[in-house]
Amino acid sequence: MAAHLHFNHFSSHHICPARLFFTSFFAVRPLLPAQRAHLHMSRINASITQSSCSNFSLGHKENYRSYTVHLQQRETLGKRLHCTGTRLVDTEEHAVEEGIPCTSSSSPSSSHSFNLRVEPFKKRLRIAEIKGGQEEGLERVGEQITIRGWTRTCRLQKSFCFLEVNDGSCLSNLQCIVGSDTEGFGLIEAGSVSTGASVAVEGQLVESQGSKQKVELKASKLHLIGGTDALTYPVQKKRLSREYLRSIAHLRPRTNTFGAVSRVRNALAYATHKFFQERGFIWVASPIITASDCEGAGEQFCVTTLVPNSPKDSSTPIQSIPSTKDGLLDWSKDFFGKPAFLTVSGQLNAEIYATALSDVYTFGPTFRAENSNTTRHLAEFWMIEPELAFADLKDDMACAASYLQYVVRYILDECKEDMQFFDSWIEKGILARLNDVAMKDFRHVTYTDAVNILLKAETKFEFPVKWGCDLQSEHERYLTEKVFNGTPLIVTDYPKDIKAFYMRQNDDGKTVAAMDVLVPRVGELIGGSQREERLDVLERRIEELGLEKDSYWWYLDLRRYGTVPHAGFGLGFERLVQFSTGIDNIRDAIPFPRVPGSAEF
Amino acid sequence: MAAHLHFNHFSSHHICPARLFFTSFFAVRPLLPAQRAHLHMSRINASITQSSCSNFSLGHKENYRSYTVHLQQRETLGKRLHCTGTRLVDTEEHAVEEGIPCTSSSSPSSSHSFNLRVEPFKKRLRIAEIKGGQEEGLERVGEQITIRGWTRTCRLQKSFCFLEVNDGSCLSNLQCIVGSDTEGFGLIEAGSVSTGASVAVEGQLVESQGSKQKVELKASKLHLIGGTDALTYPVQKKRLSREYLRSIAHLRPRTNTFGAVSRVRNALAYATHKFFQERGFIWVASPIITASDCEGAGEQFCVTTLVPNSPKDSSTPIQSIPSTKDGLLDWSKDFFGKPAFLTVSGQLNAEIYATALSDVYTFGPTFRAENSNTTRHLAEFWMIEPELAFADLKDDMACAASYLQYVVRYILDECKEDMQFFDSWIEKGILARLNDVAMKDFRHVTYTDAVNILLKAETKFEFPVKWGCDLQSEHERYLTEKVFNGTPLIVTDYPKDIKAFYMRQNDDGKTVAAMDVLVPRVGELIGGSQREERLDVLERRIEELGLEKDSYWWYLDLRRYGTVPHAGFGLGFERLVQFSTGIDNIRDAIPFPRVPGSAEF
Repeated sequence: MAAHLHFNHFSSHHICPARLFFTSFFAVRPLLPAQRAHLHMSRINASITQSSCSNFSLGHKENYRSYTVHLQQRETLGKRLHCTGTRLVDTEEHAVEEGIPCTSSSSPSSSHSFNLRVEPFKKRLRIAEIKGGQEEGLERVGEQITIRGWTRTCRLQKSFCFLEVNDGSCLSNLQCIVGSDTEGFGLIEAGSVSTGASVAVEGQLVESQGSKQKVELKASKLHLIGGTDALTYPVQKKRLSREYLRSIAHLRPRTNTFGAVSRVRNALAYATHKFFQERGFIWVASPIITASDCEGAGEQFCVTTLVPNSPKDSSTPIQSIPSTKDGLLDWSKDFFGKPAFLTVSGQLNAEIYATALSDVYTFGPTFRAENSNTTRHLAEFWMIEPELAFADLKDDMACAASYLQYVVRYILDECKEDMQFFDSWIEKGILARLNDVAMKDFRHVTYTDAVNILLKAETKFEFPVKWGCDLQSEHERYLTEKVFNGTPLIVTDYPKDIKAFYMRQNDDGKTVAAMDVLVPRVGELIGGSQREERLDVLERRIEELGLEKDSYWWYLDLRRYGTVPHAGFGLGFERLVQFSTGIDNIRDAIPFPRVPGSAEF
Repeated sequence: MAAHLHFNHFSSHHICPARLFFTSFFAVRPLLPAQRAHLHMSRINASITQSSCSNFSLGHKENYRSYTVHLQQRETLGKRLHCTGTRLVDTEEHAVEEGIPCTSSSSPSSSHSFNLRVEPFKKRLRIAEIKGGQEEGLERVGEQITIRGWTRTCRLQKSFCFLEVNDGSCLSNLQCIVGSDTEGFGLIEAGSVSTGASVAVEGQLVESQGSKQKVELKASKLHLIGGTDALTYPVQKKRLSREYLRSIAHLRPRTNTFGAVSRVRNALAYATHKFFQERGFIWVASPIITASDCEGAGEQFCVTTLVPNSPKDSSTPIQSIPSTKDGLLDWSKDFFGKPAFLTVSGQLNAEIYATALSDVYTFGPTFRAENSNTTRHLAEFWMIEPELAFADLKDDMACAASYLQYVVRYILDECKEDMQFFDSWIEKGILARLNDVAMKDFRHVTYTDAVNILLKAETKFEFPVKWGCDLQSEHERYLTEKVFNGTPLIVTDYPKDIKAFYMRQNDDGKTVAAMDVLVPRVGELIGGSQREERLDVLERRIEELGLEKDSYWWYLDLRRYGTVPHAGFGLGFERLVQFSTGIDNIRDAIPFPRVPGSAEF
């Protein structure tokens, strides 16, 4: 647990680095900033006396201009301490002391500024940092702070005003008390601080008298950054339909619901990376544009420069499109020299990397040009596709279950306030439903057993069940919600005729090593399989299905040279967001939904 | 630092969860697996006695079927312990004891299997875990292990064979000693284990006699998983040209160079997410397809379903393309009802989210349909675009410098072996170059000063310099390499006429608050700016440049309603990979490069 301490000494024209090791440095982290600064200072001093550079001394102003101390520790945030004179600044957090002298300038008129240094990055104080503490801000009471954000409401009382400010870092607003003695109170009286206006508020954090929050800001100074026209601003404090909000997708993240969805979506994405990275998986960027014709699933978008290649000039005479003598589109004139399409899946590309680097995952956009105007389909959506080498269907199931539990636990732990909001306002009971997913062992039935269960069910299904048919959403939800009581369920070994060519054939000759993970409310959330690694079996299957074998030359090469058992699964990221937030319509689970007839913003 | 301990008790038909808090649990982590298991066991026992469920006991076999213990700690890997009987298994790592009984089955014939549970996810033992330890594997000497990977070389000696196995988890192979007493030695004699063949090797890890590695595997059992045809396998152990390897992009990750590039690329991507996530930035998925016509930069790919929408059917008669009475392409018949294109940048969309959630970043693919056949251009590449609210150019510079230093430090720390490989084989001196970037304070000059420096330079430039011209790569490299001695440099305040419409105008009326980060060898790596937040100034600029103001309605709304100073930058991820690995051609910095004439795989 030793932290590295890199120590640089800069004078104006030369650089003299010294490197020392420094143990148990992180023990001082939980202290208050002021104490920390002091401790860091003395500890740095202690180290310096041990170093060979005797002219390093924090008390000696003439011999140095600035110190940069860099701490690193595996799995924790790298930290830099920047010291000028006797001031010590924790640059990744906030200035420990205010008023750091400016050593660089962005003024274009300053000449002879060749030795200016770029200042350390200072994180602005966010409301999430104030209210997100163990004691919901009480630990900071008494501090002088400045917050910046957007006005949610401004309620004028007799002699003061409750100003609710939100900066998007969390669901909560910070309540600011703006009194008649506050500098800038006139702005309130003039009605300039309306919903949506951006403000900076300076003052002291105090214990709140109200019951809704632990702390509030007693404002000494209010600054209006950007006003709004209260009459035309579309995001007033009233319930707006989701449909309407989609038409103002540039303003909808300013609402409680879309702010919360954005934060949870972000947490799910990061948890996805963390899960796979911590287990040694390599992220692979599968291609977006592809001229490979072995994907085959669903209708695809064509990517071309034969039709206009700038939005500024879109009136294209048909006659201007390059054609062959036979009156066909001349693909040889296109950017890629042949038809190219937007990818529908990165799986086959992921298999390339899995059979070289062992375990990989993709996380990128995929596309369907299907004309589906439903609450469950997007033309553009993000997919997560892990691929595991030296793995069979059982490993695949275990990985899928472990992944899903990890990300659900992550948002339950890290997004408590937003998840509570969903439970109250979007889907009552979502916390219990997700807790079940996080905590219960996933169950497993074969497709054949699942069909038998469904045949014996007393429920009347819209689509009748029989062996050989794909399961419908109603069947999937019945299994996971009714038969297995809310426990996620993995159904395996589907009939080969309803599954893709690359899935590994079971010995029975009828089924393949496929799996679908079914979850309450959504039904199928994850689909995966063990891949056919046997060259001869795969070639036979490609021929059986009448596919063009030559197109699969490189995919077959993976079996020809050092083939290995491997397996993987795919997960539509927006489905996961729906599942995790309770949002009904998938168009509200992505910032800018693309659906038939609409690709605005 | 309290770790949560969720404790579930499962009997066959009911679930009884108990939850306890457990402090300082993580103190036991550095112990060896066997000791850990024991300690966990006793600690769990201790907790159970404190709980209200007295029938929980690890010594009592009848009352429970399995325990799942889940540990979570902010910023650390969640861990699960799975206990069956008296066996305790650390499921995220390896089985502490071997031979866990199988409680689920993927056999499709098993009926009445409704209560099968999905097993915990077991990570396969990777070579990186063996050789990546502090003592390069010596700490595991004596362990019985099985590794799986691909044969790199197989050198037959008199009575035994050196088998070098690589599994892609790290650059190093594990050397296996396969003797005549090894089960499967016949495979070697028969010549079946050639370069590229996949194998599983079981044996004891022993100290190596050779000087090249600390440990090797004394094989007791060799299993051939998938052979290769040694005559046709294209990736033999000899130097292959990068150009040739691009034509076999499905096999090139099996080479040392592309394996290393893939791992470092992955580390850069993860470090990017870590940097921004740890600082409260929200990842936003900017759209890939867009019908918005305010991007305007560069030539774009059209996305359409008017021409064939399946690779299977690509011979399109021109006459079959929907047209209007005037003989123009009928966009109303297209999927989105109007022309749609692949995005060139997510910045404007990121601004939407920055002005709602404060700090955001995009990390996704972007596209250029320019016919550039160079070593620095791709038609499809990944971009990182952070956007900071309540921030000016100085914050932007600080963020860019801090970001770049963070990711460079991350790969220097986390990818030591691969980086050493690049230093030896790809670009001599890259470690020193990157170390400079990681450790030196970035410098800052204005464009005006930079031009003055260049005008005084004694070097003869291909492109002459004068105020008002954009800086060329030769100028940028001269500044950072010669004038600033390898220190990265940020040039700011460029003439407004060579920069985009959205950059904030300086008071001098001639320049804008733009910045370019220049680094040795590459030149410009990052470009950014403070955005024009003043509605009237932005509208005037849009008119001045003759842009269609109506297209920018939503972009202008962000200034109309609660505008805030904000700034951001963009970084081509593949340029960062080039910069970080020394790889010459950008086509080798992405798994599947898309360039004019080629979108294979």
